[in-house]
Amino acid sequence: MRNIRLTLAYDGTRYVGWQMQPNGVSVQSVVEAAIREFSGCRASLISAGRTDAGVHALGQVANFRTESTIPCRGFVAGLQPFLPDDILVRSADEVPLDFHATYAAKRKRYRYVILNARPAHPFLGRYAHHFHAALDERAMHEAAQVLVGTHDFCSFETEHPNTATSVRTIFEATVGRFGGWPAWNTSAVGEDKATAGEFIWFDIVADGFLYNMVRTIAGTLIRVGEHKWNAADLRRIVDGHDRRHAGPTAPACGLYLVKVDYEVALLTTTVKSATVETSTAGKDGTHP
Amino acid sequence: MRNIRLTLAYDGTRYVGWQMQPNGVSVQSVVEAAIREFSGCRASLISAGRTDAGVHALGQVANFRTESTIPCRGFVAGLQPFLPDDILVRSADEVPLDFHATYAAKRKRYRYVILNARPAHPFLGRYAHHFHAALDERAMHEAAQVLVGTHDFCSFETEHPNTATSVRTIFEATVGRFGGWPAWNTSAVGEDKATAGEFIWFDIVADGFLYNMVRTIAGTLIRVGEHKWNAADLRRIVDGHDRRHAGPTAPACGLYLVKVDYEVALLTTTVKSATVETSTAGKDGTHP
Repeated sequence: MRNIRLTLAYDGTRYVGWQMQPNGVSVQSVVEAAIREFSGCRASLISAGRTDAGVHALGQVANFRTESTIPCRGFVAGLQPFLPDDILVRSADEVPLDFHATYAAKRKRYRYVILNARPAHPFLGRYAHHFHAALDERAMHEAAQVLVGTHDFCSFETEHPNTATSVRTIFEATVGRFGGWPAWNTSAVGEDKATAGEFIWFDIVADGFLYNMVRTIAGTLIRVGEHKWNAADLRRIVDGHDRRHAGPTAPACGLYLVKVDYEVALLTTTVKSATVETSTAGKDGTHP
Repeated sequence: MRNIRLTLAYDGTRYVGWQMQPNGVSVQSVVEAAIREFSGCRASLISAGRTDAGVHALGQVANFRTESTIPCRGFVAGLQPFLPDDILVRSADEVPLDFHATYAAKRKRYRYVILNARPAHPFLGRYAHHFHAALDERAMHEAAQVLVGTHDFCSFETEHPNTATSVRTIFEATVGRFGGWPAWNTSAVGEDKATAGEFIWFDIVADGFLYNMVRTIAGTLIRVGEHKWNAADLRRIVDGHDRRHAGPTAPACGLYLVKVDYEVALLTTTVKSATVETSTAGKDGTHP
């Protein structure tokens, strides 16, 4: 028996979320079906986090136990043809049998992306929350620092029966502004000053997140960006321990599960690992 | 009677192209239906260029004559709700009655985007041509300079009955390398060195283009990037005046109609114009 850990990226738009649901197709079910088709073995995936409907992932992590002898390299290159274009296997590695993607996760990075401009975007509509009115990203960043540290974050938790404690530790909360993809500039690449800063990103790193926590914090920070609230209001909301004090839950399309960190010690017995090689073809055009 | 000029951006993925075709939905038909619904007047659109199925536009231009008295501002904000999310009205302006978007175009900029990396991209798969093997973008740029100037480009023309002459003037041909959208980095925004240069862009500006010309030049430049051909081969291909000498036609998904330039004199009698305001909310979060 082996324990294989996959790192996955996906466009969450057309899925009901990571977890199986009666009302549609889940990422988990699609990946499990692909593993079964490819390896001939059934697999039950355990993920680092259960992303909701419409939420995207850049580095979701999921492990599964298998009797298959397919090497990790095979699980990267071989699994991809059995998956739709909106799910990508970034890497596969073999981990100790007791590794559990949910419980072993030490830190997770989530990102919330806002298109802060009047016009919609023809290509990024599904990948960012479109918010028309002007937002002050410096005020948002300053207020976000109130969240850093160990607090009871139940003010930002959508009611959910399974949570034992709502205390979490936030290690980082950063807000910044950036432009769209240079390829989508309407002048020469890199010369479009007009749209240089039309997106706002909010990165948050913590030891764990409550249900809808990132989206509720994002909705609250948007109020700060509008100058309706400030850092002191955010502190009052945290201390109030009441969901009704916080802002609205921001839409799913702006949210990304970026990266999950595990204790290195847990992985020392890693047998094999494989990553899709990124071409480093550059100045001399040669392969790495 | 008025003549209205629209600037449009669209995701070409699900369309049969700009022009109406019996086998599917065209961008032209969708925009014409939206104008009819919104203004109550029929409109026949004349475009700067007829993009093919799957080809995208950042700045397509199309004009139509109308009896409608709706101001240009109305055509920007009011038309959008009648359009699907993958077509965006960037601006509208009133131009002289004899303005013709096809014939009055002086220069057009097209862009071809290549994902030059082993792994596919979960979000940009429909917006770039995925080419695995290493490409030398400096050799591509050098060879592309052979194209600049006035030449008979029939070596890059897919057979097409309506073309009177295949002589065109290329003003600029530039190849460069750049990274993906910073929001999609798997580390903190702006810190992902590994994928900093995984895309190649090729920009070409000319007074006009033959059928499939940009995609055939892109396919030919890819051969140069692989070091199978060089600048001298490209010159031989241009001078050979034979389509069979050039490389393959590169896929539509990598191609963008970026911008169309018109003679300023043509537009001096412009009555009104309207653009979607881009929020310049920045350091102080105020509206412009």
